[in-house]
Amino acid sequence: MRLNEQQTRQFETEGWLFLPEAFSAEEVAVLRTEAEAIYREDRKEIWRETSGSPRTAFAAHTYNEGFRILGTHPRLIEPVEQLFGEHLYMHQFKINAKSAFDGAVWQWHQDYGTWARDDGMPEPKAMNIAVFLDEVMAINGPLMLVPRSHRHGTLAAEHDVSTTSYPLWTLDNETVKRLVDEGGIVTPIGAPGGVMMFHGNLVHGSAGNITPYPRKIVYLTLNAVANYIRTPTRPDWIAHRDFTPIEPVGDEALLHYARRFRQAAE
Amino acid sequence: MRLNEQQTRQFETEGWLFLPEAFSAEEVAVLRTEAEAIYREDRKEIWRETSGSPRTAFAAHTYNEGFRILGTHPRLIEPVEQLFGEHLYMHQFKINAKSAFDGAVWQWHQDYGTWARDDGMPEPKAMNIAVFLDEVMAINGPLMLVPRSHRHGTLAAEHDVSTTSYPLWTLDNETVKRLVDEGGIVTPIGAPGGVMMFHGNLVHGSAGNITPYPRKIVYLTLNAVANYIRTPTRPDWIAHRDFTPIEPVGDEALLHYARRFRQAAE
Repeated sequence: MRLNEQQTRQFETEGWLFLPEAFSAEEVAVLRTEAEAIYREDRKEIWRETSGSPRTAFAAHTYNEGFRILGTHPRLIEPVEQLFGEHLYMHQFKINAKSAFDGAVWQWHQDYGTWARDDGMPEPKAMNIAVFLDEVMAINGPLMLVPRSHRHGTLAAEHDVSTTSYPLWTLDNETVKRLVDEGGIVTPIGAPGGVMMFHGNLVHGSAGNITPYPRKIVYLTLNAVANYIRTPTRPDWIAHRDFTPIEPVGDEALLHYARRFRQAAE
Repeated sequence: MRLNEQQTRQFETEGWLFLPEAFSAEEVAVLRTEAEAIYREDRKEIWRETSGSPRTAFAAHTYNEGFRILGTHPRLIEPVEQLFGEHLYMHQFKINAKSAFDGAVWQWHQDYGTWARDDGMPEPKAMNIAVFLDEVMAINGPLMLVPRSHRHGTLAAEHDVSTTSYPLWTLDNETVKRLVDEGGIVTPIGAPGGVMMFHGNLVHGSAGNITPYPRKIVYLTLNAVANYIRTPTRPDWIAHRDFTPIEPVGDEALLHYARRFRQAAE
């Protein structure tokens, strides 16, 4: 899958790109079912809120076949290869829950802030791609992006280890206000299967979710192979050390898997 | 101001009614300025989050002229008199902040649950009216209403004194899920000056606000005089004991006040 000129231009100037319905309902349904099963597992890769609700499941592409396929899917890999002009490896892979009723906040941050400080990633030549597993609505804690904020480079940040259960390099209110005054806030929403790409320096956050609607999103962090991390401090199931270039599977691979999965369940 | 038939019918069936731009930008600007000044005061009627940010200022109609006028404004009093067919007094008056960056959550609840249990109000013949002082957006913690939930009467609730700084009789997740499955969730949003009325038994809540946009709303709780509270347990600046029927001021009163206020400031 190739991005057209209007899409690449939007990514360059605005720092983000939303592709509604990049995956079909059938393709995404199997991943939603698998994600719910993974959250019920008891394993170190799954982080929980103090309430016990799941917050993030790391590295599911290493222990689940559906997510392995998603992590090598051409509809995700090829557009990023196109934008970077380089081969990619998987730096991080997580399924964020934003659970119904008590999905917690993610404070304003840049992802590259963490990749640089905690993992020793040389340049912001890595991209986060969000794949919606549930419908993302205005009311269930959608990702809020600050358009154009990626043009400000890597901003000063503080290591927040208290607000929520996941340590994060967060920005101060003054910086966020300044960037929002310039660029506003956008919240791409839509049906399961939507895909959002955003620059590693794009400022973003999300509020809590008190609705009965869960809002699961898979995040792939694809890093240029030459930009591999130099001084990792986090476990290898959070910041991967396998820098092998990803070989995309066929475009039909996830659909075929979904059908096999459904047949096996019947 | 009288509601038309379509409006009264919507209130009866859906439990809420939104009147965009009920107050002009000029009328509401003065109240916004006054609210910000009140939040800077140090007085017992102002409750704060643990961060120090204001959460609620009670009873401002008793110590501020602009809010005194708002509390007797015909655009608020007359529609509720029309719906109830009775004279009204002010049961509660508060300015909720939902501050920028750290405005906290309000869990799912019915207001009448608190008025009945804490104040000894005989019947749900009281109405909350929200007056938007700031723009209410999808992203800054708008009120979320569950349409038609008022038809279920007063639901079992638990006294939540831990989640946030304001004790509240909150509903359990199962009940909320059941009601939302039936009625969905609506979030009226819009410019400052918008007015929303909702039934005392309508289930509602709001998520936190991490945006740089504050979301101040004034809430009048108008109670039918004959439905005065019998066994109050809260201070009289939270649950008022003055049951005198409200005499509406002229429709121009707030506009005139805004102009006097601006002249005095110049």
